[in-house]
Amino acid sequence: MKTRARPENRICLPAGFSFSATCAGIKASGRPDLALVEASPGTTAAALFTQNRIVAAPVEVGRQALAASRGRVRAVIVNSGNANCATGKAGTRACEQTCREVARLLGVRATEVFPSSTGIIGVPLQVDRIIPKLTGLVGAQEATAKAVNDFASAIMTTDKRPKSACAHFQSGKTSVKVLGLAKGAGMIHPQVATMLVYLFTDARASPAELKQLLRNVCDKSFNCISVDGDTSTNDTVLLLASGVSAVSLGDGRAGKRLSNALHQVCQSLAEQIVFDGEGVRHVIRLSVEQAKDRDEALRVARTVAHSLLAKTAWAGADPNWGRILAAVGRSGIAVNSARVSIFIDTQMVCHRGVAHAFNKQQAHQALARPYCKIRILLGRGKANSTFLTSDLTAEYVRINAEYST
Amino acid sequence: MKTRARPENRICLPAGFSFSATCAGIKASGRPDLALVEASPGTTAAALFTQNRIVAAPVEVGRQALAASRGRVRAVIVNSGNANCATGKAGTRACEQTCREVARLLGVRATEVFPSSTGIIGVPLQVDRIIPKLTGLVGAQEATAKAVNDFASAIMTTDKRPKSACAHFQSGKTSVKVLGLAKGAGMIHPQVATMLVYLFTDARASPAELKQLLRNVCDKSFNCISVDGDTSTNDTVLLLASGVSAVSLGDGRAGKRLSNALHQVCQSLAEQIVFDGEGVRHVIRLSVEQAKDRDEALRVARTVAHSLLAKTAWAGADPNWGRILAAVGRSGIAVNSARVSIFIDTQMVCHRGVAHAFNKQQAHQALARPYCKIRILLGRGKANSTFLTSDLTAEYVRINAEYST
Repeated sequence: MKTRARPENRICLPAGFSFSATCAGIKASGRPDLALVEASPGTTAAALFTQNRIVAAPVEVGRQALAASRGRVRAVIVNSGNANCATGKAGTRACEQTCREVARLLGVRATEVFPSSTGIIGVPLQVDRIIPKLTGLVGAQEATAKAVNDFASAIMTTDKRPKSACAHFQSGKTSVKVLGLAKGAGMIHPQVATMLVYLFTDARASPAELKQLLRNVCDKSFNCISVDGDTSTNDTVLLLASGVSAVSLGDGRAGKRLSNALHQVCQSLAEQIVFDGEGVRHVIRLSVEQAKDRDEALRVARTVAHSLLAKTAWAGADPNWGRILAAVGRSGIAVNSARVSIFIDTQMVCHRGVAHAFNKQQAHQALARPYCKIRILLGRGKANSTFLTSDLTAEYVRINAEYST
Repeated sequence: MKTRARPENRICLPAGFSFSATCAGIKASGRPDLALVEASPGTTAAALFTQNRIVAAPVEVGRQALAASRGRVRAVIVNSGNANCATGKAGTRACEQTCREVARLLGVRATEVFPSSTGIIGVPLQVDRIIPKLTGLVGAQEATAKAVNDFASAIMTTDKRPKSACAHFQSGKTSVKVLGLAKGAGMIHPQVATMLVYLFTDARASPAELKQLLRNVCDKSFNCISVDGDTSTNDTVLLLASGVSAVSLGDGRAGKRLSNALHQVCQSLAEQIVFDGEGVRHVIRLSVEQAKDRDEALRVARTVAHSLLAKTAWAGADPNWGRILAAVGRSGIAVNSARVSIFIDTQMVCHRGVAHAFNKQQAHQALARPYCKIRILLGRGKANSTFLTSDLTAEYVRINAEYST
């Protein structure tokens, strides 16, 4: 990461999408909590969902809708403040009812409406508060930067700021645009954090092409971050392609360029999610190098990223490399201590398993900055992986230990 | 657990062991940090070590010594304040030198001296402070309750109290005794916590018999606890049998009774370790039931026990069962949400994947007590497992975020 990720001020809006948001009273705060995207006819879609075996109603309904419509989406309807998870058949019915009503108002099929929810788990969704708001929501959507920002704000829970990123590329004389909107690690009542990501492009692609693109891009962005190691029941990444630019993936280098643009957007959103993680004060980029393969590098990175002792050391800007080494040792990889070296920022702190003389004050200062890089060299091969994670602060505990029920 | 575990006030001392402790100046606090056990001739031994691939010098030296002596131990030498880990060949030499000197003073073989260390990782062990103290240590050992308590105190790091447990059983007219001493999750400089456990009995058993006993007992006690999910580089459980009682494992029901007595001692020590975990205010006994097999039950228990969101909810005495359900869902087991039920204390809070009406104030009060039981029913089979874990408090973060270097 060259610079600290931050929300884009300038929204570059792909053609074929319009946005709106409103307050339905699901959030106790009264803040906006219901948001809509309308997509132009012919929009194709692909989505990836949480790996959690316990999934929320909208994840099930959305998955089925995408299958039934064969990857066609005309609208996305999102509520925050309630995850609609562990709510049984009533939760599924509430979700389906919402999709049907959006479909009716827009004159599209119910299976072309894609639903998401984020918020508390195990509380019935107050669908009677949502339904009456849909008419106004459907009448208000706009293809403007303000409407996009309203959407990005309405899907937040304990996020401190809305998250968006843009990219574009030229294909012949046409500018093709990619826009990403996300919410990250936070909840209105502290519950399992949900990551919701919506990606929009005006490129033209089949659902199968989109799915392949999405898998590749997510593997290197959203699947390489962690705030607290808890996988949500509602995680969703949805990619929509309106085709309005008339640029297809097969046109010259458009496929490769779209992939790059998507990667750029997803990487920025992933970074924004970690920087805005609950209680996060320090973001750490782990670079695991000299692994036998990428899976091995990722396994080591995840183990270090989830180590409470590493994360609390980072909270104190403590260059305590022994904790990192110990986490590497329990990662399940057959590491040889005598081949492992560790760098904090630019300084080597552990050389082949043993303390290496370093300037502790300088390492402390590097870790005290909002963002620091830590390199772990395994001495086993040539594969690398980078992983973005955060410290664990007393503020995280405070946010999540508040009595919510 | 019927009652909250606490250190035994009455020490029942197995025949054949004597103890001493002193201050060597390894701990910055000046507290006792060097401790010795002498075991009578013929004492057999077995040990289990950390699964971490990065291991401390004493773990390597101790493992080799047990192999070389074929399971014979005449002395145990422990220092606290420095883990002697990631200290390279100099660390190994320091450990070996200490063992040789203890052996010389006691007139036994160096391979019959078993070493342990606990404390900070990556700092050279000041063996020149240890060696001069060994003469006094070897001259001072006693078979008294006071000497046992001195030993248990000298092996502590950030432990708040020494940990011991006793049990005994009759074999014919002979009383056979089991004593266990442990240190738990804490460090003089906050580093990876090390669990050290020493078990003593005056029963007679071969090293192979002891190893089998130890494996069975540890699987159900020390392998079923977690404070922070970080496996230490120094974990060691050592079982010594002096044989002085002349009761052998084959004598009537002695084998079974010794196993029961050992289990009782280890279970008590395991509980003491969790209750004295860093920053711990609430201990949770997870009972995972209706699993297909024990491994599956343990996997679910470990996932819930390591969930930051579950642990922070417990810190706030928050009956937030959605977080528990979400952790079950990401445990890797093919759970069906519609079959999972959850109890907090005696109340059902989630029935077949959906909220079950319960008295929230009562559940909050149950979780506000120092110890609470949570049952997770998977609806998949008949296997059960219990697991002892703790909340995650701001105090834990404070202890471990202190700038140590």
